[in-house]
Amino acid sequence: MLTKTEEPKVMRDVIHGYIHIDLKIIWDLIDTKEFQRLRRIHQLGGDFQVYHTAEHSRFSHSLGVYEVVRRMVSEVKDLRETLDEKEKVYVMIAGLLHDIGHFPFSHAFESICDISHETFSSRIILGNSEIHDVLAKVDENLPEIIAGIIRYTYPNELLNQIVSGQLDADRMDYLLRDAYFTGTSYGAFDLERILRTIRVKDGKLLVKESGIHSVEDYIMARYHMYWQVYYHPVCRSYEIVLQKIFERMRYLYHNDFDKIKHLTMFLPFLDGEPTIYDHFYLDENAALYGISQLTKIDDQIAADLANRLLNRKLFEYEDVHKPEDEQRIQEEVKKSGYDLSYYCIMDTTSQSPYQPYGEKRGHVIWVLGDDKKIAELSTKSVIVQSLVKGDTKKECKIFFPKLI
Amino acid sequence: MLTKTEEPKVMRDVIHGYIHIDLKIIWDLIDTKEFQRLRRIHQLGGDFQVYHTAEHSRFSHSLGVYEVVRRMVSEVKDLRETLDEKEKVYVMIAGLLHDIGHFPFSHAFESICDISHETFSSRIILGNSEIHDVLAKVDENLPEIIAGIIRYTYPNELLNQIVSGQLDADRMDYLLRDAYFTGTSYGAFDLERILRTIRVKDGKLLVKESGIHSVEDYIMARYHMYWQVYYHPVCRSYEIVLQKIFERMRYLYHNDFDKIKHLTMFLPFLDGEPTIYDHFYLDENAALYGISQLTKIDDQIAADLANRLLNRKLFEYEDVHKPEDEQRIQEEVKKSGYDLSYYCIMDTTSQSPYQPYGEKRGHVIWVLGDDKKIAELSTKSVIVQSLVKGDTKKECKIFFPKLI
Amino acid sequence: MLTKTEEPKVMRDVIHGYIHIDLKIIWDLIDTKEFQRLRRIHQLGGDFQVYHTAEHSRFSHSLGVYEVVRRMVSEVKDLRETLDEKEKVYVMIAGLLHDIGHFPFSHAFESICDISHETFSSRIILGNSEIHDVLAKVDENLPEIIAGIIRYTYPNELLNQIVSGQLDADRMDYLLRDAYFTGTSYGAFDLERILRTIRVKDGKLLVKESGIHSVEDYIMARYHMYWQVYYHPVCRSYEIVLQKIFERMRYLYHNDFDKIKHLTMFLPFLDGEPTIYDHFYLDENAALYGISQLTKIDDQIAADLANRLLNRKLFEYEDVHKPEDEQRIQEEVKKSGYDLSYYCIMDTTSQSPYQPYGEKRGHVIWVLGDDKKIAELSTKSVIVQSLVKGDTKKECKIFFPKLI
Amino acid sequence: MLTKTEEPKVMRDVIHGYIHIDLKIIWDLIDTKEFQRLRRIHQLGGDFQVYHTAEHSRFSHSLGVYEVVRRMVSEVKDLRETLDEKEKVYVMIAGLLHDIGHFPFSHAFESICDISHETFSSRIILGNSEIHDVLAKVDENLPEIIAGIIRYTYPNELLNQIVSGQLDADRMDYLLRDAYFTGTSYGAFDLERILRTIRVKDGKLLVKESGIHSVEDYIMARYHMYWQVYYHPVCRSYEIVLQKIFERMRYLYHNDFDKIKHLTMFLPFLDGEPTIYDHFYLDENAALYGISQLTKIDDQIAADLANRLLNRKLFEYEDVHKPEDEQRIQEEVKKSGYDLSYYCIMDTTSQSPYQPYGEKRGHVIWVLGDDKKIAELSTKSVIVQSLVKGDTKKECKIFFPKLI
Repeated sequence: MLTKTEEPKVMRDVIHGYIHIDLKIIWDLIDTKEFQRLRRIHQLGGDFQVYHTAEHSRFSHSLGVYEVVRRMVSEVKDLRETLDEKEKVYVMIAGLLHDIGHFPFSHAFESICDISHETFSSRIILGNSEIHDVLAKVDENLPEIIAGIIRYTYPNELLNQIVSGQLDADRMDYLLRDAYFTGTSYGAFDLERILRTIRVKDGKLLVKESGIHSVEDYIMARYHMYWQVYYHPVCRSYEIVLQKIFERMRYLYHNDFDKIKHLTMFLPFLDGEPTIYDHFYLDENAALYGISQLTKIDDQIAADLANRLLNRKLFEYEDVHKPEDEQRIQEEVKKSGYDLSYYCIMDTTSQSPYQPYGEKRGHVIWVLGDDKKIAELSTKSVIVQSLVKGDTKKECKIFFPKLI
Repeated sequence: MLTKTEEPKVMRDVIHGYIHIDLKIIWDLIDTKEFQRLRRIHQLGGDFQVYHTAEHSRFSHSLGVYEVVRRMVSEVKDLRETLDEKEKVYVMIAGLLHDIGHFPFSHAFESICDISHETFSSRIILGNSEIHDVLAKVDENLPEIIAGIIRYTYPNELLNQIVSGQLDADRMDYLLRDAYFTGTSYGAFDLERILRTIRVKDGKLLVKESGIHSVEDYIMARYHMYWQVYYHPVCRSYEIVLQKIFERMRYLYHNDFDKIKHLTMFLPFLDGEPTIYDHFYLDENAALYGISQLTKIDDQIAADLANRLLNRKLFEYEDVHKPEDEQRIQEEVKKSGYDLSYYCIMDTTSQSPYQPYGEKRGHVIWVLGDDKKIAELSTKSVIVQSLVKGDTKKECKIFFPKLI
Repeated sequence: MLTKTEEPKVMRDVIHGYIHIDLKIIWDLIDTKEFQRLRRIHQLGGDFQVYHTAEHSRFSHSLGVYEVVRRMVSEVKDLRETLDEKEKVYVMIAGLLHDIGHFPFSHAFESICDISHETFSSRIILGNSEIHDVLAKVDENLPEIIAGIIRYTYPNELLNQIVSGQLDADRMDYLLRDAYFTGTSYGAFDLERILRTIRVKDGKLLVKESGIHSVEDYIMARYHMYWQVYYHPVCRSYEIVLQKIFERMRYLYHNDFDKIKHLTMFLPFLDGEPTIYDHFYLDENAALYGISQLTKIDDQIAADLANRLLNRKLFEYEDVHKPEDEQRIQEEVKKSGYDLSYYCIMDTTSQSPYQPYGEKRGHVIWVLGDDKKIAELSTKSVIVQSLVKGDTKKECKIFFPKLI
Repeated sequence: MLTKTEEPKVMRDVIHGYIHIDLKIIWDLIDTKEFQRLRRIHQLGGDFQVYHTAEHSRFSHSLGVYEVVRRMVSEVKDLRETLDEKEKVYVMIAGLLHDIGHFPFSHAFESICDISHETFSSRIILGNSEIHDVLAKVDENLPEIIAGIIRYTYPNELLNQIVSGQLDADRMDYLLRDAYFTGTSYGAFDLERILRTIRVKDGKLLVKESGIHSVEDYIMARYHMYWQVYYHPVCRSYEIVLQKIFERMRYLYHNDFDKIKHLTMFLPFLDGEPTIYDHFYLDENAALYGISQLTKIDDQIAADLANRLLNRKLFEYEDVHKPEDEQRIQEEVKKSGYDLSYYCIMDTTSQSPYQPYGEKRGHVIWVLGDDKKIAELSTKSVIVQSLVKGDTKKECKIFFPKLI
């Protein structure tokens, strides 16, 4: 597992300068076809419809997560000394592979096929794949170990936290990367300083009290990215049209199969029993090619929705403040001859900057006080405490086609 | 043509801060399906196989070119005063649409189907397209005018130069953009300063003598981008594998048609008579989906090459210094059982930083001297003169599969 | 007043790209000796003792404020249309000159000589200075107008707000500039977007509801800069040593005059009646040269403190949580033989991110709601509301020499 | 010498992110008063008169050089393995201290007092200084070793090259730093990549052939910084006025001593026998305070020149193409009543991008070819070869006061 590459390799990266690789297993994993597939899936789904430069892939992000983990286990003294050499490799691999099960368009697609991407990540790592072969060749228990860290069930919880806690490598990379590619300043925070203030105590990942300001900045960065990018109404509109396309395909699958039987890339998912082979071939190219074929079929709704998605004739939206708003719009949409179940959709989003309780899986940020005691972040930060006590921002919108 | 949008619109852009749009015609053109298609074609073809963050599209670049043109005609005093209001719109439109005819993978594909992307740009602008409709609705001569500027045949040569001269908006955007997305510093040059030093005299675009340093920097930026990015051997390898895939498909098309008849997206191009309808549907999603289907067909060479492309098992390469190098490698490749015509390819690249003569279409950079006389750049710049007189860098490589 | 320079001039600036100047009066003001003096005063006083690259001057900042004002009155539609051409020049001048009365080391010095820098700004603008001459030559009322805006007493309150409200050009420049030169990301916020969302209604400067996220980001930027830079304990330590130097000089002035009579640059300020001539000659060079001479005088306390300041042997500090902490340290300092009044100083800092009430002079941020009504920021922003309701961060420290 | 600080220390830096310090001796050297004095000297002398944000000090630059050396000896494998632990510390110290002897305004002042800053660097390191004490306390030979590296006479030439060769840490830091603070892109080059391609062979510092593009970029960066910043005519004008001030002071010193006898900071330098004590007290504050006092003396020429310098009424300039240009201007200047020897100065500047021969002290860049042979850069780089063979850029200007 600790075998080195012949010479240290680097891949230039816009966020981290370089991705540094000197373990053969990491290099081999990147070389697998399942990992290369991530090049063919946009990190932010359809968000490039709003931020046209946000065209980066899950491939770049996955390398970035690996790099942040690598820096954590080699530059953070407490981690370097707490983890043994094998565990360091485990967690680097888990960081690299944590998104391996993703579908195109991410969560929109997930909601259609009722199988989470985490489930597919496990299946790929444990199943018949090039990734499994690379892992098992080195150590037959390795696939199970890696899948465990990704599922947050590995015995040494520290590893799980590094990959998916509140201050994890995943988020640290995607906030910086999404900010760079959207061209917003919102996601920027001080990674160097956070790395310098991470500590380990009692098996917990902590931040030194003197690093609290950087963490406050990071929490605000996250909050702003949600509202300015991830929940941007046009991004929501893209996802909603996409969901409706899949709903319509599912309807046709059960009621008018002949019309879509040639869209072979989607059939296993509509069927409900997709294999990892099906998953491999359903990259974004296949999905969008399928949708472009959909524009040509003899079903008014499916063809129209597919056209809207490809050619950016997305849904409009309006804020809903009271029930009458909803009613009024429904009537207008109906009057224009649209089927409400596909063309009039309520959507509610809410996001609080940070919630210190009630969440499973390490969703709390712990602080190592100047007094050497461990405390939850909001007890130490005036800003975070205010945010925790304050209201949660919530938006309710209704989406529908442009009415003439 | 000069109708404004209801209120000025902006699109956030990582290179220019914002793309500013206040003309209705520009907004309507962006909204056409042919322009939206550019979102589905990578600006740098397969170069993201080397620079993994270079995943930007021709869509972003086209907006960027528009923005540089817009700034030129509004911020460069000589242009603002020389061009009339209509000409300013002409050239902004031409900048926006100059890449509209592009294929996926750009030049690699072009060489296969024997039709240049410029030809398709004209066909789309003049033919049965949403773009043509938007243009012709405003002025029936507009399609012809725009196609003329893109073909460098418009009577007022100044407009042609702005879109495709030596200091054109196209290059200024792509150097900055490609540098940003590859994460290299090579492509960076001082756009602000170049814009401030552009002048017009005798119908020529010129640079003030005091701006020469910025132009030298720009020429070096271009030169370095060629060698470090565009001619990177792994990028070349990707293109070569791609070309061989198309060669093999063409062979099968003529000799074993049944095996590829289901790859409908490629057939019109193999046939040699693609329409703009075929062109519209052949975006990168379709091409890569087609290639992924190719991995499953019953032809060893096609399936193998397609696999190599998708899963990044590209060709290796070696420098060729003398004829024996070539012979030796050919023998080794042959011994491993490969068909040389698909698996052993010589490739020569050369690039000089700047050549002041012999090229058609405004390939000279003119300087407005402190003495108010016009001079060719190399007579004014010690650096450029040295480069013009010096040798041209040339590389000759041979590409072939990894031999075991 | 509206006379142009012969040709538009630019000064390259790291924050704004370029400072654009095309009014003769602005150029002439920059050329005065009182404005050039600002080159000789650090923007952040002694903060470069902590952030060693924070060596920028009030000169650069003043140009930056001018540039932000210039952009506001030309790019913000409501301002462009509300203000007449003369008022636009007034407010640009006021932005340029708002810091003209500053002393070296800013607030530390101010507290010694009991005259605020604002008072000196007025005196210089209204008195016998090159600046006054430039202004009065154009319009004899101009000095009074400019001084009025800076004092926040100009009848059209909009102008006052642009220079010194809650979202003023002063703060917008210094947050970005201080962040750039300290190398922190804390001060970064999205100036472009804020400029795009500023509106005017009922004589008030407002932010459109859709721009609230940028304002939240700006408020957090400000808050973090306070704690991470402006209130950094080592910066406080520098200011405290400086104050004690001046206290000691004042003591000597009254009790042992001969020892400091050669420090002619300080005498008028110790005397209490400094003129603008004295003020002009007291730049940072003079002050630090004077302090370096102080190291050589025959007064143990003055010489020691001066040495500490110049050679960075500043005071240590400890948090004070309870009265006993203070007592304990006082005793230790006394035991080491130090005079407590110069060598043992309590210092309390507090800062809330934003307070919507109780402050004079436009200290509220107003929002123009989607419903076209004007509302105070915290009623529209969940984040800001939380911060307003939450506690105020407060720190109490004691400063004293390193004890051996 | 290898004693660590209690915990690793960092100083945030805009160029390198952080300056990393974990050796006690480095920390102690930074703490000396001679090193702290560098805070009071601008890195680029009076260049901030043109690039108003170029206000950084020799202190920041010296830390930056240290950091580049530190990275070289720890990240460049060949250096890490070639140098022993003590040599690594030697060269880090030499990098840190190489500018310790600098005067205010750098080369302008040097030319007046006929002692080079290198001489003073040696004197300080070897003489009665806090720096000497820190070094000698650790090892009595250390002062001599450090001075040797700075003088390029240390036996292991590799160390000398790291501090002052053609690809030295000094230049690498100042190009990046000066570019950052001037806000130009010219000085940007790819430090990471150069560090990755440095090799050592036969006691020589080399660059791998694959790194040549980065070196070409670096050479061009250097060339452009010379012409755009260091030789900017207004910067030259500042230096010329400064030289004339010192010339006039020297004249008064010998002919009218009473008029300047109170300018005690300058006297030892006019006298010709300055000690390191005099040197210590002549920082930029002292020099500029002295010059501000000069404006008040009863000597028309000295007072006028001092005023010009402080209040930026610098000399104008004109290009000289032929002898008559010079004559004509001299006559005009004379007619206006100016003393030609102080008010009419010819100035010639020339700079070639790179010269591979004839220079002492490692002024050649060596390349480690793909064939493992060592070659001089211009034999490997088409670009550099062109530049070496091409002409040298030369400018001749005459400087004089604005004539009315």
